[in-house]
Amino acid sequence: MSQYVPKKTDRFTFGLWTVGNIGRDPFGTAVRSSLSAVSIVRKLSELGAYGVNLHDNDLVPIDAAPAERDSIVSEFKKALADYDMKVPMATTNLFYDPAFKEGAFTANDPKVRAYAVQKTMRAMDLGAELGAKVYVFWGGREGTETDACKDPRDGIKRYRECLNFLAAYDEEQGYNYRFAIEPKPNEPRGDIYLPTVGAALGFISTLDKSDKFGVNPEYAHDTMAGLNFVHAVGQALDAGKLFHIDLNGQKPGRYDQDYRFGAEDIKANFFLVKLLEESGYQGSLHFDAHAYRTEDEEGVWDFARGCMRTYLLLKEKAHQFQQDAEIQAILQDVHSDAEGYAQLLAAPTAENRSKLNATQFNREILGSRGYRYERLDQLTTELLLGMR
Amino acid sequence: MSQYVPKKTDRFTFGLWTVGNIGRDPFGTAVRSSLSAVSIVRKLSELGAYGVNLHDNDLVPIDAAPAERDSIVSEFKKALADYDMKVPMATTNLFYDPAFKEGAFTANDPKVRAYAVQKTMRAMDLGAELGAKVYVFWGGREGTETDACKDPRDGIKRYRECLNFLAAYDEEQGYNYRFAIEPKPNEPRGDIYLPTVGAALGFISTLDKSDKFGVNPEYAHDTMAGLNFVHAVGQALDAGKLFHIDLNGQKPGRYDQDYRFGAEDIKANFFLVKLLEESGYQGSLHFDAHAYRTEDEEGVWDFARGCMRTYLLLKEKAHQFQQDAEIQAILQDVHSDAEGYAQLLAAPTAENRSKLNATQFNREILGSRGYRYERLDQLTTELLLGMR
Amino acid sequence: MSQYVPKKTDRFTFGLWTVGNIGRDPFGTAVRSSLSAVSIVRKLSELGAYGVNLHDNDLVPIDAAPAERDSIVSEFKKALADYDMKVPMATTNLFYDPAFKEGAFTANDPKVRAYAVQKTMRAMDLGAELGAKVYVFWGGREGTETDACKDPRDGIKRYRECLNFLAAYDEEQGYNYRFAIEPKPNEPRGDIYLPTVGAALGFISTLDKSDKFGVNPEYAHDTMAGLNFVHAVGQALDAGKLFHIDLNGQKPGRYDQDYRFGAEDIKANFFLVKLLEESGYQGSLHFDAHAYRTEDEEGVWDFARGCMRTYLLLKEKAHQFQQDAEIQAILQDVHSDAEGYAQLLAAPTAENRSKLNATQFNREILGSRGYRYERLDQLTTELLLGMR
Amino acid sequence: MSQYVPKKTDRFTFGLWTVGNIGRDPFGTAVRSSLSAVSIVRKLSELGAYGVNLHDNDLVPIDAAPAERDSIVSEFKKALADYDMKVPMATTNLFYDPAFKEGAFTANDPKVRAYAVQKTMRAMDLGAELGAKVYVFWGGREGTETDACKDPRDGIKRYRECLNFLAAYDEEQGYNYRFAIEPKPNEPRGDIYLPTVGAALGFISTLDKSDKFGVNPEYAHDTMAGLNFVHAVGQALDAGKLFHIDLNGQKPGRYDQDYRFGAEDIKANFFLVKLLEESGYQGSLHFDAHAYRTEDEEGVWDFARGCMRTYLLLKEKAHQFQQDAEIQAILQDVHSDAEGYAQLLAAPTAENRSKLNATQFNREILGSRGYRYERLDQLTTELLLGMR
Repeated sequence: MSQYVPKKTDRFTFGLWTVGNIGRDPFGTAVRSSLSAVSIVRKLSELGAYGVNLHDNDLVPIDAAPAERDSIVSEFKKALADYDMKVPMATTNLFYDPAFKEGAFTANDPKVRAYAVQKTMRAMDLGAELGAKVYVFWGGREGTETDACKDPRDGIKRYRECLNFLAAYDEEQGYNYRFAIEPKPNEPRGDIYLPTVGAALGFISTLDKSDKFGVNPEYAHDTMAGLNFVHAVGQALDAGKLFHIDLNGQKPGRYDQDYRFGAEDIKANFFLVKLLEESGYQGSLHFDAHAYRTEDEEGVWDFARGCMRTYLLLKEKAHQFQQDAEIQAILQDVHSDAEGYAQLLAAPTAENRSKLNATQFNREILGSRGYRYERLDQLTTELLLGMR
Repeated sequence: MSQYVPKKTDRFTFGLWTVGNIGRDPFGTAVRSSLSAVSIVRKLSELGAYGVNLHDNDLVPIDAAPAERDSIVSEFKKALADYDMKVPMATTNLFYDPAFKEGAFTANDPKVRAYAVQKTMRAMDLGAELGAKVYVFWGGREGTETDACKDPRDGIKRYRECLNFLAAYDEEQGYNYRFAIEPKPNEPRGDIYLPTVGAALGFISTLDKSDKFGVNPEYAHDTMAGLNFVHAVGQALDAGKLFHIDLNGQKPGRYDQDYRFGAEDIKANFFLVKLLEESGYQGSLHFDAHAYRTEDEEGVWDFARGCMRTYLLLKEKAHQFQQDAEIQAILQDVHSDAEGYAQLLAAPTAENRSKLNATQFNREILGSRGYRYERLDQLTTELLLGMR
Repeated sequence: MSQYVPKKTDRFTFGLWTVGNIGRDPFGTAVRSSLSAVSIVRKLSELGAYGVNLHDNDLVPIDAAPAERDSIVSEFKKALADYDMKVPMATTNLFYDPAFKEGAFTANDPKVRAYAVQKTMRAMDLGAELGAKVYVFWGGREGTETDACKDPRDGIKRYRECLNFLAAYDEEQGYNYRFAIEPKPNEPRGDIYLPTVGAALGFISTLDKSDKFGVNPEYAHDTMAGLNFVHAVGQALDAGKLFHIDLNGQKPGRYDQDYRFGAEDIKANFFLVKLLEESGYQGSLHFDAHAYRTEDEEGVWDFARGCMRTYLLLKEKAHQFQQDAEIQAILQDVHSDAEGYAQLLAAPTAENRSKLNATQFNREILGSRGYRYERLDQLTTELLLGMR
Repeated sequence: MSQYVPKKTDRFTFGLWTVGNIGRDPFGTAVRSSLSAVSIVRKLSELGAYGVNLHDNDLVPIDAAPAERDSIVSEFKKALADYDMKVPMATTNLFYDPAFKEGAFTANDPKVRAYAVQKTMRAMDLGAELGAKVYVFWGGREGTETDACKDPRDGIKRYRECLNFLAAYDEEQGYNYRFAIEPKPNEPRGDIYLPTVGAALGFISTLDKSDKFGVNPEYAHDTMAGLNFVHAVGQALDAGKLFHIDLNGQKPGRYDQDYRFGAEDIKANFFLVKLLEESGYQGSLHFDAHAYRTEDEEGVWDFARGCMRTYLLLKEKAHQFQQDAEIQAILQDVHSDAEGYAQLLAAPTAENRSKLNATQFNREILGSRGYRYERLDQLTTELLLGMR
C-alpha cells in the first residue's frame, strides 16, 4: 500500500554512520566495507528518506587539510542537490580520538576541553555550510569509570561553560542553530554525565541561553536504564524541548544495541509513534541504528527500509486507536470531569483553595472504582496484532 | 571512638515508617509488631538521631476525627520536646489507600486529584504544626502500567497544576516550606512519572514558583535504574536544588530494597558522603530504609545504629582522602591548567573565541597522556579497606 | 472467530492466587475483595480454562483443624466436578508465614527446614487428593540479603537434602508426582538461590532421583534478570525437563510485575508460543499473573480472558510464520547443509575427526556471506502487526 | 607488608589479551600500543603472577604459516621458561573473525560450525604444547539478535555436538584437558546461549563425557544480569565443577566493563574471595579484565598490581572474619541444631519421614525469632572498612 512507502514529507533521516556502520564491535572486526558518503546519499534518497545527518569526521577526516576538506564538502553538497537530500542535523565527533579518552567538555585537562570546543566550532561551521538547523551534543566521553578522579559538580560546570561558549559562538556567527543535548547513561564510559532525558532538561535550565537548547532523546539510551522512553519524550514535549529524536531498538539493562526501529518492544514503539504524531512534532525522525553484524550491504538496505516502514505501520495503528469506538469509550469514561475538579485545580486561586478545602470526599467510592485498563490494554494489543 | 557516635549536630533523621516498618512484603505478612510513634521518638533520640520525619498517616489515621487527631498530635509534640527531637520534614501518604490506585496528582479522575490535593493541604498543616521546614512529594502512584490509559503530557501537566496549587497554599498560609520532589523510576507503578533526579530537576523549571522547589534524591531510587547516584546528587547541588536526601542501600535493576545505609556498594557510598561533606550541604541526612525482615526489634535498632555509624566512618574516610599525599598528587597533576585554558572557556567573550580559534592543538600529545586512574582508584580502594 | 475462544483442550490454567489476587502491594493495601475458591472455579470454567492450581494455603488456612480442612476440600472437589475443572498442579506456600522469613528448605535453623518439609508433605497429600500430577517448588524465601549469614554451598546442599527427602516421600506414598522447580533471581529475598532456569537444571543433575525433577520456568522470572526466556525454555525442552510453565508479562530489571500474558514484549511472547507449539509440549499453560491494581472484579475477568486470547492469537501467528513463503525461503537458505558438515559433526568418530582435520576452509568466504536477518526480522514484525 | 606481595603460590594469572588490551571500544580507537607476548610474560612474572593464558590468535595470527607459527611458539616457550611462567589455560578465538558473525558452534551454516571445530582442535594442540591443563569455551558469538533465525533447541543441540566432538578429540590425543565452559548473558550478541553459570551446569549434564566438563564463571558475566556471583560460584563448587575462574569488576545491567578486580562491589568481592579460600579451590585465579582507557602502559601495570593486591587484602579480611568473636558468635547461634533436625533431614529414610510427620512445630515461635543479620552485616562492613 502506498501509504507505507516513505516520502520526503515523512521527514525520515539517517546518519552517515548508521547505514555506513561496518559492523565492528568490542569483540570483532569489521564485516562490511565502508560506503562512500555520496553512495549513501543516493541510496537513502531512492529509499524515500528526507535527509542524512553527520558528525564532522563522518565526512571529513580529522586531519584533512583545508583543500581536501573543501573538495569533500563540495562533492557531498553536489550529491545532496542531485538526490534532493537535506542535512537537517549535524554534530561533532568528540569520542573516537584518544585525545578525548578522559572526556571532552568535561575533561580534567583544560587543554582537552579547549580542543573539544574548537573542534565543535569548526564542526558547527561545517553543519551550517550544509544547511543543518539542529546541532546535537552527545557527550559520549563525558563521564567516569571511577569518581575518585572528578567531582561531579565540576563535570556539570565545565559542560555548562563549554555549551555557553558555543551558544555565544552560534550567535556571533548567526547560525541560529537549535542545540539538542542527547543523553545516555553509560557506554562507552562507566557512567556518563546527563544520563537521561530528564537530566538534560534539568541541566538546560542552568544555561545562559537556555531557550536555544532542547533535547535529542534516543530510544536506546533511556531504555538501556530501563526507563519509560514514552514518558521521557512526553516530558520533553511538555517543556517545549523536543528538538530532535533518535529512533531505534534496544533491550533494557544491556549494552547499546542500536537495533532497527521496531525490533524491540512493539507496544512501547507504538505509544511513541502515537505520541509523536498526536503532539504535532515537526522535527526529523532520525534513525540512529545499524544493521545486525550478520548482514552484508543488502541487509543494510533491508534495515533502512524496515525502520521507515515500521514507523508508518505504527502511525496507521495510532490512527486506528483513535478510531476504535470501544477503546475511546473506556478512555472517555475514565477521563470524565463531571463535577469540574479539573478546572478548579487548574487555577490556584484563593477561592478555589477555599472551595477545595470545604469539599467532602468519599474515599471508599474513589477507591472502589474499576478502570478497565486490562480491557483497554488487551484491545490495544489486539489492535497491534491486526486482530481487531 | 567518640567521633563515630552520632550527635544531634550530625543531623541524622529517620522516618516513623522506617524503624516502624513491620516487615510486610509482596509475598509475606508482618514479622514485627508496630512501634508507637512516641517510643520511636524516644529510642531514636537515645541513639543520637536529630529528628524524625513522617507521612500524615504515619501519625494520624486517615479517618481520625479532629479530636483524635489533636490528641495524637499533642502527645507526639510532647514526646518531641521530652526527647529533644525535631520533625525537619513532612510528607503526604498518597499511595496506600485504594483511592490512589490510579494515581493521585496525575489520576485520570479529576476528583481523585482534588482529594489528593486536599489531603496534602491538611498534611502540610500538620507538618507546619510540628515545625517541619521541608515538605517532600513522593509520587509513588503517579504512573502507569499501560500507556494506553494516559498521555504522558497529561500526567506531567496535572502534576504541575497540583504543585502550583499547593505552592500557592503554602504562600497563603505563610508556611514557607521548601518543597522537595522525590523521584523514583518504578514500583509500585509499572513506570512512575519523574523517574530520576534529572527528570525532577527538569520538571521544576516549568513550575510557577520554581524557586520554592528542589529535590529529595533517594539512593535506592536512581540506583534501581542503574544510574550513578553521586552524579545525580552532584547535578542537584550544582543547580542549588538539593533540599533533602534519602540514604539507604540498593542493588541496581531490582525491586526497592531499602537496605541499611552502607549495605551496598561501599565505594559509591563513600563518594556520596565525600560529596555531601565537601559541598557544605546543611540539610537532613535522612535514612529511608528499614531492617531486614529477618530481624526482631533488637535488629531494628542495630539497623538504625548501623546507618549512622557507617555514615560517620565514611566521613572519616573522606577526610583521609583529602589528606592522602599520593592521591592528592595524582589529582593535582591531572587538573593542572598550566596554560590557562580553564579561564578562557569560563568567559564566552569574542576575544576568547578568537583566541581559541587561533590555537594549534596537538591531538597526538593529548591522546597519549596516561591519567593514572587505575592507581588512583586502587589507592581509594585500599583507603576504604583501611589498608593504607 | 471461534478459534480464539479458549477450550479445555488448550490446557489453560490459572492459580487460585492469580485471579484471586486482592491488589495488595508493598506500598498499598488491598483494592479488591477476596473471591471464594468455588466462585473462581466456576468463573474460570465459564471462560474456558482447563484447570486451577493452588498452594496449600490458597485453599486451606494454615492452622485449619482437620475437620475444617476436610470440609473445605470436599466442597472444593465438588466444585471441580460440577464445573469440569482439574487441578493439574499443586504447590506449598513456604513464603508468607514469618516462620519462613529466613528461608524454608535453606533456613539456617534446622527446625525451620524440618517444618518446611513437613508442611510440604502435607501439601503433597492435599495435591494428590485433588488429582495434581505436577508438584511445583518455588523457593521464594530461599536466599539472602547478606551473604555474611550463610555459605551458598550450604544453601544448595540443604535444598538438595529437602528435595531428596520429599522425593522419597513421594515414592513411599505412590503419588508419582513430576516435581518442577521454579527459579527466580530475587524478590522477596535480596538474592534467591537457583536464580534462573539454567541454575535449576544444573541443580537437578545433583539430586538423588533426578529423573523425577524438571523445571517450571516463569516468563517474569528469567526476564527480571534480562535473560532471554525463549532460550531458557529451549534449554529446558532440549533436556527433557519442561514439566510446567508460568506465563505472564514483565519488563526486565525491575520488581516482579506479573502482568497479563502478552502485555510486554509481543515478539518474545510470539517466539515463546511458537517454541511451545512446535515442541509438542503437552503440559499445562499456566498463567501466573494478576490484574492491574486499578481493576475491580470485572477487570480481573478481562485479565483472565486476555491471557488466554493472546496465547491463541500468537499461536495463529506461529502458524502463519510456518506458512510464509518468503520467511521460509530465508530460513531454508541459511540452514542449508549442501556439503554434509552437519552430519560429520553429529558423529564424533575418528574418521570424522580426520576428515575434518584435512578440510581446507576459506574463512573470507564464510565471513562475507549476508544472512538477511534484517529482512527476516522485519517480516516477522509485519506478520505480528497483521500487516502481511 | 610482604603478605600482600603476590607470589607464584597465589596462582594469579592474566590473559595475554588483558594487559595487552589496547583500549579500543565501540566508540573509540586504540589508545595504547600493542605489547609483545614476550614482554607481557616478563613483566607479569616480575609482578608476581604465576602464569599467562591465551586464545590461539593472541599468540599466533589466524593465517600464520606453519613455520611462522612454530617460530612464534618457540620464542614464547623460551620466554615462559626464562621467566618461570606457566600457561595453565588456553582457549580459542571464535569471535573476532567475520566468519563467526552468525555463531561458531551454533552457527546456522554447518560449514561455519565445522571450521570452528577445526580451529578449536588446532588451538587445543597449541594449548597442549604450552602445557595448558584447562581449556575454556567462551561462546561469545553463540547467540542471536532475533529468534526468528534459529530454534533455541537447535542452538543447544549443535553446541553439544561440537563439544562432544572435541571431547573425543581430546581423548584421542591424550591431552586430558579439563574443559571449562564460560557463560555470558549477552554482548557481543543480543542474547547468548548458556547465559549463566547455572545454564552451563545444566548443559554439562547433557554431554557425552560430562565428567570432563566444568565451568569458568566470570564475575562480570553473571553480574551483568544482576545475578549474585557468589551464589553462582557456590553452586559450581557444590557440583564439583569449578574448573577455573575469571575475576574482574562490573556494574549490573550494563555493557561488559571488565574493570580491575575489586573496583566494584567490595562486599561481594569479599564474599567471593572468602568462598574461594574456604572451599579449598586450587585452580588459577585468573584476572579477565583490562585497564581503563585513560591509561598508558604504566597504568596497565598499576591495573595488574591492583588486581592481585586487592585479592590478597580481601583474603586477609576473610581470615579476620573467621577470627572475629562477635561475628562467629552470631553465626554459631543461628546455625545451632540443638534438636537434631539437620541430621534427620540428611537421611531420607522411612523412619525419619515418620518421625518428622509426627513432630509438632510451633510456627509462632519459629517466626518470632530475630536473626541479628543487621548486626552481622554491619560488623562485616566495619571489618571491610578496617574499622574493627
